[in-house]
Amino acid sequence: MTGGTSGGFEIGIFTFGEITADPATGRPIDPVVRLREFIGLARLADQAGLDVFGVGEHHRPDFAIASPPVVLAVVAQATDRIRLTSTVTVLSTADPVKVFEDFATVDLISAGRAEITAGRGAYTESFPLFGHDLADYDELFDEKLDLLLHLNRAERVTWSGRHRAPLADAGIYPRPIQEQFPVWIGVGGTPASVVRAGKHGLPLYLAILGQPERFAPFADLYRQAGAEAGKRAETLRVGMTSHFYAEKTSQGARDTFYPYYSRYIGDTMPAARGQRLPRGAFDAWAGPHGALFAGSPQQIIDKILWEHQLLGHDRFLAQIGLGGLPSPTPPAPSKSSPQKSACRPTRNSIKARTICRSAGDSGGSRVRPDRGGCSGLRSARTLKWHVL
Amino acid sequence: MTGGTSGGFEIGIFTFGEITADPATGRPIDPVVRLREFIGLARLADQAGLDVFGVGEHHRPDFAIASPPVVLAVVAQATDRIRLTSTVTVLSTADPVKVFEDFATVDLISAGRAEITAGRGAYTESFPLFGHDLADYDELFDEKLDLLLHLNRAERVTWSGRHRAPLADAGIYPRPIQEQFPVWIGVGGTPASVVRAGKHGLPLYLAILGQPERFAPFADLYRQAGAEAGKRAETLRVGMTSHFYAEKTSQGARDTFYPYYSRYIGDTMPAARGQRLPRGAFDAWAGPHGALFAGSPQQIIDKILWEHQLLGHDRFLAQIGLGGLPSPTPPAPSKSSPQKSACRPTRNSIKARTICRSAGDSGGSRVRPDRGGCSGLRSARTLKWHVL
Repeated sequence: MTGGTSGGFEIGIFTFGEITADPATGRPIDPVVRLREFIGLARLADQAGLDVFGVGEHHRPDFAIASPPVVLAVVAQATDRIRLTSTVTVLSTADPVKVFEDFATVDLISAGRAEITAGRGAYTESFPLFGHDLADYDELFDEKLDLLLHLNRAERVTWSGRHRAPLADAGIYPRPIQEQFPVWIGVGGTPASVVRAGKHGLPLYLAILGQPERFAPFADLYRQAGAEAGKRAETLRVGMTSHFYAEKTSQGARDTFYPYYSRYIGDTMPAARGQRLPRGAFDAWAGPHGALFAGSPQQIIDKILWEHQLLGHDRFLAQIGLGGLPSPTPPAPSKSSPQKSACRPTRNSIKARTICRSAGDSGGSRVRPDRGGCSGLRSARTLKWHVL
Repeated sequence: MTGGTSGGFEIGIFTFGEITADPATGRPIDPVVRLREFIGLARLADQAGLDVFGVGEHHRPDFAIASPPVVLAVVAQATDRIRLTSTVTVLSTADPVKVFEDFATVDLISAGRAEITAGRGAYTESFPLFGHDLADYDELFDEKLDLLLHLNRAERVTWSGRHRAPLADAGIYPRPIQEQFPVWIGVGGTPASVVRAGKHGLPLYLAILGQPERFAPFADLYRQAGAEAGKRAETLRVGMTSHFYAEKTSQGARDTFYPYYSRYIGDTMPAARGQRLPRGAFDAWAGPHGALFAGSPQQIIDKILWEHQLLGHDRFLAQIGLGGLPSPTPPAPSKSSPQKSACRPTRNSIKARTICRSAGDSGGSRVRPDRGGCSGLRSARTLKWHVL
């Protein structure tokens, strides 16, 4: 199983579909409009050449998306090339059989572009909702992941566990197009989760929400655990996810983003306990060595490269729409109008050229020349990233 | 709660998404192509003015659809007016919270066109797959339906049962656009199921798979149970579902359909136990008073009217694509081509004019003149139903 690699450095966007009230107007966001915005944005990302589009799973009134595969199926129909993933599927409280069936359907609609990102869930609303006990937090994830990987390996499965009914030579249908789904593991910074992903040889997303330097040991730990378990280096992919907003100027990006982001941190990040983020801390996070991607296109590129030197990752996912930040694209067009209308170029753009990923990298890769002689950036493949 | 009525007699189509091998070629159907066919057909039905599009739920290798809301979300995005339903959601083995969340998402994507049809499941594959015991067949459905109706009535729910974890003042999100989903009950001919639907005041589909006359007492029983439970007549809607294929001539329709349908009955109807349907029986079923809608446009219209006299129903759903019968439409267009291309008129068409449904019908309605003076067919509203 691979991580769905295209062979180069990959860039994607994802959203949780926040529908919190706009801090400027105080009005809550219409979820119908919000979903249309993100479907339009996915289409734009597809046409601009981005590699991945993801949606998160939440079970709260301030998020529009509880069912990633239902939304991803719509995105599948609206796009041609971009890979589709959950960010994340809260596997601990889901039924892996249903997850597999739903994503197999997305895979059929998209002709083979579905991925699953499995996580334990930073938010815990789904535990009481689906009858699970937070005391089983670790065991639930281990067991559900084990079942999902069984389902991914074979059409007929015999399995038993403590938290889900057993399967006796059960066939799961429909079958996906891909022989196996790429199953990524999303982690927030728990060493045991990193080691688990390495041992399974599953690609890993690190959600970078603190000092990026702190995450370098995790990437090393992951590759070491994978190597010790005999996993091939090419299966041990590292992706990173970050909060994101870009504008033409650094100052403009920060000024636009701050009210949304400070509210997001206060209202929805469990660790913040309702405290809004002060502007000084925000500016520090958005600095050259902070975790937050909020700035000008050049600053975004510089930070991707700097983090690549730290982590050797080969996929970067930018979280957009934070705190109810409006989408830069118009709503998706109606079914009867030509689809191109939603995809007109927007004011500014980032050219984020592909970071080299040498063939045969063996785990501890860093930016380095490839056979074509590039030095950190491969000019042959240019991604245009449209932002406000 | 209403059944999502448009006020007139409604006509729709639905499919289980069979991917059985074509009896003419012996080749299995590609599920990617099959899903595209049906999405294209849903778009055509939407543009032709049909009222409802549905997809079934199966967990077998010969069906492409296990996840109705995932497919319906794609159809929602591809259509403008047509209502979207499951035919059916096997509620006995599903989690009503997940069902509600998934259909709320379809409701958001479709701006308020989602319906749920709940059934106990004519096929039983899902029972072992989701850890349920067939011995609990009735109790499971009662309990899951009770929870689904609780979720449909209020945003925050406290509930407990034997087969699903309890909810303690749980909020379910995202919220649908519609104040309440239309929840229809699909029954095959069990009197207790008919009475259950009436007592709940829920609209009822009768799956007509035997002599239509046999179903008239069920419609009466349903209306009586509803009236005794104090339910308003306008909530006591009856729909009927039938196997369907139409061509310009009766003989052509039967000759084309027979090999697919006889195989469908043998392979997939549990009661047939592998026996193919003989041609003589097929022709009898397709006769003027048989359950099967296989014939010329005029025969289809005549049979709808005859059954309306028997049952007083106000919604007719035609099951298409049976036995892997190819779709008459080309596959859905790619995202970059204008969508109209999938919707060109096909060779023949049925004009199925709307059967009158008088305002204020009180349960035992039959075809009768409405205020506009029509006698059985309302000429002002014409549906064009494109077939092969």
